[in-house]
Amino acid sequence: MRRLPAAIERLSAELARLPGVGQRTALRLTFHLLTGGRERALALANSLETLHEGVRFCARCHHLSAGPLCEICADPSRDSALICVVEGVPDLLAIERTSEFRGTYHVLHGVLSPLRGVGPGELRLASLVERVESELPREMILAVPISVEGEATASYIQGLLRSRDLVVSRIASGVPQGAELEYIDEDTLGRALRARRIL
Amino acid sequence: MRRLPAAIERLSAELARLPGVGQRTALRLTFHLLTGGRERALALANSLETLHEGVRFCARCHHLSAGPLCEICADPSRDSALICVVEGVPDLLAIERTSEFRGTYHVLHGVLSPLRGVGPGELRLASLVERVESELPREMILAVPISVEGEATASYIQGLLRSRDLVVSRIASGVPQGAELEYIDEDTLGRALRARRIL
Repeated sequence: MRRLPAAIERLSAELARLPGVGQRTALRLTFHLLTGGRERALALANSLETLHEGVRFCARCHHLSAGPLCEICADPSRDSALICVVEGVPDLLAIERTSEFRGTYHVLHGVLSPLRGVGPGELRLASLVERVESELPREMILAVPISVEGEATASYIQGLLRSRDLVVSRIASGVPQGAELEYIDEDTLGRALRARRIL
Repeated sequence: MRRLPAAIERLSAELARLPGVGQRTALRLTFHLLTGGRERALALANSLETLHEGVRFCARCHHLSAGPLCEICADPSRDSALICVVEGVPDLLAIERTSEFRGTYHVLHGVLSPLRGVGPGELRLASLVERVESELPREMILAVPISVEGEATASYIQGLLRSRDLVVSRIASGVPQGAELEYIDEDTLGRALRARRIL
């Protein structure tokens, strides 16, 4: 029972392939683009066409980049002796939003996950070891997720760097600010108790 | 503090202009399109470019259409003597999904709203009166929303057609199926009581 022009069905189907966009939302967005005027739809189309041309990975930290080095690696005010290891770009952006960190990053593009077939070879680990050898950083902060896979990845990296002369640290895990203890999962609350600070 | 290639910022900004898509969601969708491969992004771009070319309004009922008449108006098995008046295309599609209606539609593309500056001239009312004069329908079902604006629109149309020889009806309002009376708004419950059926 198709009652809509093929051009609408086609765009709806493409939009419905995006994560978190269902059939109804896709149709609603299509109507919006249809009534919002042709220029808006063409501007969006153009951005999509030029997306891949304008983006590559930083040769040093594997962050998304417009040039050979990303803006963070190219910034001389960032502390190269401090490397923060993250699972992906969204985590890097989250840390940047804190304005707490002035070092550089290393994006693994994944975490170890035997269940999903992600082994050490799938992660950007060889280049991490190379950076340690060539850049001789002072400290490496493992900001991979607080999860089974994140812990496995952190342990693996720790093993890789055991013989090197640098501090390897891990971001703190505990009760997030403003959270009510009543609603915190047991794992997090247990960690918060074990990692308690003496006042 | 821009730390991402311009191509990403540009697509994110375009996506964030869509209804219900915030900055974070827009960025998440952009990453998805970036890692999902260039072909997917180009397919979406192409659908956007051809959207407006492939869509116009039905000359008779103002539904979205690929040709001069929409698929419903072009379908000889639909009952032309029965016209269902709706506010917009999403409402038409919702009625189609019920499979209860075999007549034709008339899409007003709005409802009367003095507050938002929508008067009778903004709605497809002249063509509705013309259809009554030329097609001599048996019945017109006013399926505009059950709301202050919908009621005003229904009354206005009733006034326009007072001297014509056709039945003008209104969709029923009441308690929706499966709803608990406890949580129904007073307006709906009041309507359901006033419109009670004798068993």
